[in-house]
Formats: sequence, structure tokens, C-alpha cells
Amino acid sequence: MSHKPSIAIIGGTGALGTGLARRWALAGYPITIGSRSAESATVSAQGLSALLSEKGVSGRVAGAENVEAARAADIVVLTVPFSQHAGMLGHIRESVQGRLVLDTTAPLVPPRVGTVQLPQAGSAAVSTQEALGDNVSVVSAFQTVAADKLQALHPMEGDVIVCGNKREDCARVIELVEATGMRGVYGGPLANSAASEALTSVLITINRQFKCQAGIKLVGLT
Amino acid sequence: MSHKPSIAIIGGTGALGTGLARRWALAGYPITIGSRSAESATVSAQGLSALLSEKGVSGRVAGAENVEAARAADIVVLTVPFSQHAGMLGHIRESVQGRLVLDTTAPLVPPRVGTVQLPQAGSAAVSTQEALGDNVSVVSAFQTVAADKLQALHPMEGDVIVCGNKREDCARVIELVEATGMRGVYGGPLANSAASEALTSVLITINRQFKCQAGIKLVGLT
Repeated sequence: MSHKPSIAIIGGTGALGTGLARRWALAGYPITIGSRSAESATVSAQGLSALLSEKGVSGRVAGAENVEAARAADIVVLTVPFSQHAGMLGHIRESVQGRLVLDTTAPLVPPRVGTVQLPQAGSAAVSTQEALGDNVSVVSAFQTVAADKLQALHPMEGDVIVCGNKREDCARVIELVEATGMRGVYGGPLANSAASEALTSVLITINRQFKCQAGIKLVGLT
Repeated sequence: MSHKPSIAIIGGTGALGTGLARRWALAGYPITIGSRSAESATVSAQGLSALLSEKGVSGRVAGAENVEAARAADIVVLTVPFSQHAGMLGHIRESVQGRLVLDTTAPLVPPRVGTVQLPQAGSAAVSTQEALGDNVSVVSAFQTVAADKLQALHPMEGDVIVCGNKREDCARVIELVEATGMRGVYGGPLANSAASEALTSVLITINRQFKCQAGIKLVGLT
């Protein structure tokens, strides 16, 4: 039996969700892929199971509708587009009570996704905390990660800033970051998620200029 | 005669201002150090002149009260603490009309300087633009740079994100970044300064943890 926490990935059929699911499943975490459609979730889960077999890794992978996925897991990861963020919080609110919710949301507002437009609460992560209530521990991470590189299982150069109001839950998320092959660094309280969320638009601007998939690295840590 | 633009550094006797003044003067830019006290500014300018002599570099360095300094220069650089930011904008408003103003301000609110607390306008740089008016071109940079390393003329590992609404003025600032020995990268419109400004509090949090002077580097640029 695995001693690793089980993880549900809400919106787990998108690019970032798929990338995280692959890396965590390969690292031995039990994964439930969540989607609005249980059928899509099941198809994704079957694809991931096939990948595990191919790599010779045994693992537990399932697919379910988002609420069912959330209910089953120790850690619930949000990887939905910002346009679906508020609605999804209302949808999963009851099922995530008492749990650690890892929010990866960058509050991009089309069509100007290269321009920082942080929400009224200061950050998407803080609005997640407000919507889910005090009985949920929200931690923020992964906003600056190139989803395509993650999904393709390429080596990752960048670091991941991890913000949250409970240090022990940030430490649990830093373990999850390390399981993806990246370095996770505690970046302060949940309000500091504003930095990573704003960086997403800066990185989009840079990607357009350099035709690349940029990330950020912390330097000078001795 | 130098063809390099002349630079006034408002609040130029502080750590970041001193670091920038040293590096730009050594790179051949004519520098005026601004301070609330013309006498302090003059003392700083004498110190910088002595450094140039010692390094065998000929350069033009002066000291003046902030408004006088601003009036004399092609590019005006703001390096005052956030607590003095709004007052200083009113003070120099008239003298910087028609000019490029480079704002380095991180909106830190003591005592919780490790917690992101962006101003109502979304960023300090956007509030600078609002206060100075449309006849000034505000560009934002240097919020993530360790002032002590800059001042000590140590090699710098990090990159500098440069944001502004006029691309040609961002290009002028990227040249100034390169003159300090760092790489400058265009990061989008002035609103995107929120990312660099928020990062300052994240870096303060990281500096406390690792007892270091962290910076950020952009990776994956091909």
C-alpha cells in the first residue's frame, strides 16, 4: 500500500492537469482525474494507466466527475481556466471541506492574457480561500510552469514558488513539486500568490517575443 | 562628449540608488545624484567621483536637491522608499514633464514587508503614471535586484523584467539594465510591473529563510 497522499485533479484533462497527473502518477501518487464529464475523465485515466504500464510503473489511477474526484482525495488540485474558477469553487465547496486545496489558477482575462489583471481580492488564490472558507487550507503553486513541457515529460529548468498561510501544508506541496522534478520554494503567505499569478502574464509576453516557453528560476540561494 | 543620456537618480543616496549610480557612472553615463538635502547629494557625488578616479574612469557626476537633479537629466530614476513615493511624485511632477521616468519602487508596507500588499492602482508604477500624467513615459524595472550586491559591484546572476507602455522607452531602459551587467527583458505593459513589485515581498521571504540575497532569472528563452 502507498503511504503517499491521494490526489484529485479538478479539470485534470487540460494541459497543466494532464502534465501534473502524469508526473505524480509516475512518482507513485494515487491519482483521480476529475472532469465535468465522468466519461472524459475515465478516458484520460485509461490513457494514464497505459503510460504507467509502458514505463513499468504500478500505480492507482481513476477518473470521475469533479465533485466525486474531490471527495475521494487527500489533496485536491485546481487546474481549471480562470473563466471557470468561481463556478467550480461553488461546485466543489462541500466536497473539499477539511482538505488541502492546491490552486494553480492564473487569473488570465482574455483577450489581453499578456496583461496583468489581478482580481479584486488581490489574487485568484485568496479568492479561492474566501470562497471555500476557513476549514480549507489553500496553497498556491505552478502558475509559472510551462504546461506543455510538463506534459511532454521534458526536464524542467524552473522553480516553483509555493504560497500559503499554513507552513506545514506548504511543505506538503513542496514535496509534490519535487515529485514533478522541479524545486519548490516557500514564498510566503497566500497573498503572495499575486506574484506568481502576475508572472504568468509576463511569461506569456516573453513567450510571444522569444517564441519559447519561459519559466523562472530563483538565484542567489546559498 | 558623451552620447549617452544623462541620468538623475532621485533618492540616489539610498542602497539601490547608490548601486545604480556606481554602475552607470562606471559605464560612462553622466549622473546626477538627487537627495532631499543638496549637501548629502554633493557628498555622495564626491564619493562616486573618487571611485571613478580610483578605477581610472573619466565621468561626469554631480549632486543636487531632487527637483534640481530631475530638471537636468534625460532620464529620471525613482529610488525612494514607498512611504515617500506619493509625496516625491508631487514634488518632482513639474520638473519631469516630457521625460522618461524609470520607477524602481516596490510597494512594501512595514511591518509586513514580506507580504504582498499592492496599492489600489494595481502597482506602484501605474500610480506613478497616474500622478505624473500622460506627458511622462513611466517604465518599471529593478524591483527584484539585491541592492547590496549591486552597490558592492559583485557579479549579478539575475535578470531584470522591464515593463512600460512605450516599447521604445523600454528598449532605452533595457540598455540601462545591460550597463549594470544584468540582462533586461521586456515584460509587457506598465500594469505588468505588479509581477516584479509583488516578487519583492516573495524575495524578502526567501532571503529570511535562506539567509541570502535572492533574485530571479528567466529560463527557457531560446
